[in-house]
Amino acid sequence: MKVALDAMGGDFAPSPVVQGGVEAVAQYDGLELVLVGPEDVVRPLVAEFRGEGLPISVVHAPQVVDMHESPAEALRRKPQSSIMKCWELLARREVDAIVSAGNTGAVVAGGLFTRRFLPGIKRPGIAVSIPAPTGACVLIDVGANTTPRPEHLFQYGLMGLVYAQKIHQVEHPRIGLLNVGTEDVKGNELTKETHRLFNSSHLAENFVGNIEGRDIFVGKADVIVCDGFVGNVVLKVCEGLVEMMLRTTAEELLRRFPGDMSGHVRECFQSLSQRYHYSTYGGAPLLGIDGICMICHGSSDAHAIRNAVRAAAEFVRLGVNAAIKQELALD
Amino acid sequence: MKVALDAMGGDFAPSPVVQGGVEAVAQYDGLELVLVGPEDVVRPLVAEFRGEGLPISVVHAPQVVDMHESPAEALRRKPQSSIMKCWELLARREVDAIVSAGNTGAVVAGGLFTRRFLPGIKRPGIAVSIPAPTGACVLIDVGANTTPRPEHLFQYGLMGLVYAQKIHQVEHPRIGLLNVGTEDVKGNELTKETHRLFNSSHLAENFVGNIEGRDIFVGKADVIVCDGFVGNVVLKVCEGLVEMMLRTTAEELLRRFPGDMSGHVRECFQSLSQRYHYSTYGGAPLLGIDGICMICHGSSDAHAIRNAVRAAAEFVRLGVNAAIKQELALD
Repeated sequence: MKVALDAMGGDFAPSPVVQGGVEAVAQYDGLELVLVGPEDVVRPLVAEFRGEGLPISVVHAPQVVDMHESPAEALRRKPQSSIMKCWELLARREVDAIVSAGNTGAVVAGGLFTRRFLPGIKRPGIAVSIPAPTGACVLIDVGANTTPRPEHLFQYGLMGLVYAQKIHQVEHPRIGLLNVGTEDVKGNELTKETHRLFNSSHLAENFVGNIEGRDIFVGKADVIVCDGFVGNVVLKVCEGLVEMMLRTTAEELLRRFPGDMSGHVRECFQSLSQRYHYSTYGGAPLLGIDGICMICHGSSDAHAIRNAVRAAAEFVRLGVNAAIKQELALD
Repeated sequence: MKVALDAMGGDFAPSPVVQGGVEAVAQYDGLELVLVGPEDVVRPLVAEFRGEGLPISVVHAPQVVDMHESPAEALRRKPQSSIMKCWELLARREVDAIVSAGNTGAVVAGGLFTRRFLPGIKRPGIAVSIPAPTGACVLIDVGANTTPRPEHLFQYGLMGLVYAQKIHQVEHPRIGLLNVGTEDVKGNELTKETHRLFNSSHLAENFVGNIEGRDIFVGKADVIVCDGFVGNVVLKVCEGLVEMMLRTTAEELLRRFPGDMSGHVRECFQSLSQRYHYSTYGGAPLLGIDGICMICHGSSDAHAIRNAVRAAAEFVRLGVNAAIKQELALD
C-alpha cells in the first residue's frame, strides 16, 4: 500500500509533516510512503527523523501553494506544486492514497481539476468525524462544495453511510439532514428537495429526516448531511468553542484547587483535551474520489499527520471505495 | 413602560413564564406587565406567584400555538393565539415590547404578518449575544430569514452595530461577515455580494471583512452577520456542544477528585455552566420591528423569562430603535 504525503502542506510544514510520515511508516506494516516536495528540503528531513532504510521515496515538487492563496489561481500558476504532484501520482495510480495538510481549497480544486471521481459521483465531499457521547458522527460536506444541488447532498449521505459502516463499524447507519428544525416542511429549497430525494430512494429506511444543530451531539444520527458552507462554518465553530471552553475550564480548575491537587487538575484537563482535539481523528477524507484523498487540519503536528497517514491506509485496506460503488449501484 | 408577555409560550409554560414575569415586575421600577393567555389559566398563576397588587394586567387569548406547529398555518388557524394577541398589542401601540418563549417560527411569522417594521427595514432578523472572552459578540440573523438577500444581511450588520453600541457599550463596533474563509474572494454569491455592499457603504470603516466560525470566540468582531439558516444551525451547535462539554467536564471532575473536594468541584462546574448558559442572556431581540420583540429559548425557566423581560425594558429605555433609524438615515 502506497501513500503520497504532501511534505509542504500545513502551517508548520515541512518538518512535523515529514516526522509524522516517517513515524507512520515505522509503525504500520506494509506501508510505503512517497514524500512530495522540493528534494533538497525533504531528503535532509527524512534523514533527520531516521527514515533512511524505511520504505520512503521522494517525488520532487519545486513549488508550494501557500495556505492563503486563492485555490484555482494557485494551481494554475504552480503546476509543479506539491499538491498537484500528489494528484498526478493518484491519477496515474502510482499511489493508493494522498494526504495533505495544505490549503484545503487548493487540495479540493486539484481533485476537481483531475476529475478522477468514482463512477456516478457528481461532486466529492469532505467528511469529518465528530465525537459524540454515543460514538462518532460523520458530518459531510464540510467545505468541498459550498453551492451544492440536492443530488450532491444525497450522494454525500450515501458516501457517509459507507464511511460510518466501514470506519465506525455502525451496521445500519442513520442519516440525518442538518436543518433549522425537525419538521419535514422546515428549511430552504435545497433541504426540502434533498429531504424528498432521500425519502424516495433506497436509503429511505436509513433516513431519519431533519436534524438540528444540537442533535449532532446527542446521537440522533450516525451521518449528518449538509451543504459545504454550513458544514465548514459548523466545523470551525466547534473548534473555536472547544478551544475557548477548554481554556476557561483550565482557568477555573487552577483557580479553585489548591496547589497540591495540580496533578489531578492536569489529568482532568488532558483527558478533556484529548477527547475533543481534532488530531485524535487524523484527517478528513474527500469522499467520491477514485483513490483516497485525506485532508488534514492546517495546524497539524507530527502526531496528527501520523494518524492521517494511518487513516488513509485504513481506508484503502477496508475497501471504502468498493463499498461506495456497490451502494451507488443500488440507487 | 409596558411589556406584553406570552404566558403560553415555551416548553414549560405557563407556570415558570408567569413566575418570571411577576419577578421582573417586582424587581424593575416603572415596568407594567401585560400577561397574554387564557384568563382562567393566567389569573390563578398571578395569585400563586404573589403578583396581586403589582402593575400586572391580563389580556385574554384563548388559543395556543404548539411548539412544533407549522408557523404560518398555526397563525392562520389560531387568530386568537397568545402570539397573535401580543403582536396586535404592539401594532396598536398598547405595549412598548413583547416577549415570547413560544414557537420561534410563529413569533417571527406574526411579525412578518403584522409588518410593523422600522421605516426602510426590508426584513427583521434575530440577534443573539454570544459570550466571548473579550466580551459579548452579536450574531445576526439566527433564524428569522433563511433565504436572505445581500441587502438584508447589510441591514442586519447595521442593526447589530447599534445593538453592540447600545447594549454592549462598544463605541466603534467591528462588523464581520461569517464565511468559509477570510479571503475576500471566499464564499457563495450571497456572501460575495454582501461583502461588496458593506465595503461601498457608510459602514465600510466598521466592516472587518470575512470571519470564520472559530473567530466568533476570539473577539475578531463585535457583530457577526450571517444568513438565518447558517446562524440558526450555529446557535444550536453551540448549545449542544456546550451541554456535552459541561457534562463530560462534570464527569471528569467527579471521577478524578476525592469526595471531600466535592464543594470545589461543584463551584467550578457551576461557574462554567453560568458562563455559557443561554438564560444568563435572557432573550434574543427580533431587530427591525417598530417596537421591541424579545424571543426566548423554548426551554426558558422563570430566571430566563425574568431576564428577557428586563432586557426588553432595557431596549426601550436605551432607545435602540431610534438609533437604528438614525443609522439607516445615513445609508
